[in-house]
Amino acid sequence: MGKVIGVGLGPGDPELMSLRAHRLITGARQVAYFRKAGRAGQARRIVEGLIGGQAVEHAMEYPVTTEIPVSDPAYNRLLAAFYDDWAARLTELAQGDDVVVPCEGDPFFYGSFMHLHARLQGRVEVEVVPGITGMSGCWTASGRPITWGDDVLTVLAATLPEDDLARRAADTDALVVMKIGRHLAKLRRALERAGRLTDAWLVERGTMAGQSVQRLSEVAGPVPYFSIALVHGQGRRP
Amino acid sequence: MGKVIGVGLGPGDPELMSLRAHRLITGARQVAYFRKAGRAGQARRIVEGLIGGQAVEHAMEYPVTTEIPVSDPAYNRLLAAFYDDWAARLTELAQGDDVVVPCEGDPFFYGSFMHLHARLQGRVEVEVVPGITGMSGCWTASGRPITWGDDVLTVLAATLPEDDLARRAADTDALVVMKIGRHLAKLRRALERAGRLTDAWLVERGTMAGQSVQRLSEVAGPVPYFSIALVHGQGRRP
Repeated sequence: MGKVIGVGLGPGDPELMSLRAHRLITGARQVAYFRKAGRAGQARRIVEGLIGGQAVEHAMEYPVTTEIPVSDPAYNRLLAAFYDDWAARLTELAQGDDVVVPCEGDPFFYGSFMHLHARLQGRVEVEVVPGITGMSGCWTASGRPITWGDDVLTVLAATLPEDDLARRAADTDALVVMKIGRHLAKLRRALERAGRLTDAWLVERGTMAGQSVQRLSEVAGPVPYFSIALVHGQGRRP
Repeated sequence: MGKVIGVGLGPGDPELMSLRAHRLITGARQVAYFRKAGRAGQARRIVEGLIGGQAVEHAMEYPVTTEIPVSDPAYNRLLAAFYDDWAARLTELAQGDDVVVPCEGDPFFYGSFMHLHARLQGRVEVEVVPGITGMSGCWTASGRPITWGDDVLTVLAATLPEDDLARRAADTDALVVMKIGRHLAKLRRALERAGRLTDAWLVERGTMAGQSVQRLSEVAGPVPYFSIALVHGQGRRP
C-alpha cells in the first residue's frame, strides 16, 4: 500500500530542489505531473534526466487553462471533473506503490496539487514535501531582500480587480504579485495609483535560463503568466 | 579572489536544504554563521555533520538579541557595529577563498544575512542561494494549503502594535505571523478582534524534532520566538 507524495521542486533551477525531493524523484517507480495539453510541462522539465528508466509516467493534462474565463461555471465544472478523475486514478495507482507528484514551487502555495490533496483525504495516505517558492526564486534573482525587520509582506494575484490591487499595494511594505500574464496593464495602473510603480520590478523565468529582471514601468508586455512582480520592503536595518 | 555566499538552509530539517546548498556547504573551506552568544546556533545545527574537517568555522555572535528593546537606540548601535565588523572580516576572508554563510530559511526573507549583503556591495562579490522559508515548513506541517486560487496572503511580525495586527488579520484571506515569542497574548487578542482566532494555528519547530501544531487559542505559552501562526486561506477550489 503506497502513498501519494506531492513534491515541491522549487522555482525552476533543478539544483534548487531539496535533497528529499531529489531522493523521492530519482527513486520513484510511478510519477504523475500536471501539464497543459500538448506541452512538455514545467514540472516535467525540471525533473528531466532524474526520473529512472523503470518509472511509469502519467501526464495529468488540464482540460482547460486560459481558454475559458475562471468565472465561467464551465471552467469550474471541467476542472472539478479533472481533479476527481485523477484523484481516483492516483488512489488506484497508489495501491501498488508510491506515486510521486512533482510540483513547481511549493505544493501548498497556490498549486494544483492541493486540489488532489483535498480529494485524497481518507482514501490514501498523502505526503507533502515543501519547496522553494517561485517568489523566493524571483526576489533572489532581483538581488535584493524582500523583507527587513518588521516589514509587512502582501502576496496578491494580478487577477484581482484594479481597485483591490491599488488599495493593497498602497497598504503594505513589501509586495509580491503573482499570475500576471494578460493582467500587466491593469497591474501597472494599480501600482501607479498606489505610488509604488517606480519601485516595482518584474521578474520573468526566475532562476531559469532566460531569466530577466526589469523595472515594471519599462515592460511592454505581454509577459508569461508565471511572471512575478516585486516591490521590496524598506524596513528596519541597523 | 573568493565570494561571500549566503546559503538558505530551509526550515530546519536538513533534508529540506537544496542540492546547491548541500554542495556549497559540504565543499566549503570557510564557513561563517550567526548565533546567539553561548548557543550552538540553529544554522550551525542544521549543517551538523556536513561541514568538512578542513573547513575553518567562524561564529558570528550577536552582541544582543532580546536583552534590549529593538526601539532602544543602543540596540541599533550595537547591531550596526556588529554587522560593520563582520562585513569587514568577511571581505578580508573572501580575499583567499569563498566564505559560505549558512542561513536559516531564505536569506532574503527576514534574515540577518541581508545586513551583511547590504554592507558587502562593491567590496566583494556576494551570491545568495534561496531556501525553503520557515513559513513553508510550517504550513506543510499543518497539513493544509495556505493559499488557494486568488487568495491574498499577508505576512506579519507579531512585534507590530495590536491594532495593526487586528486590522490586517481582518483584511486578508490567508495569514502568516512570524516572530511571536512573548507577543503571543497580544496576537491572540488581535486575532480574536479580527474574528480569526478560531481558525488560527500555531506551529512550533516546523519540520524539526519536537514539531507541534496546535490551535492558537489552546496554546498557553510561552512559545519560542521562531514559532509561526497560520490562518489558512479558503479561496477558489474547483
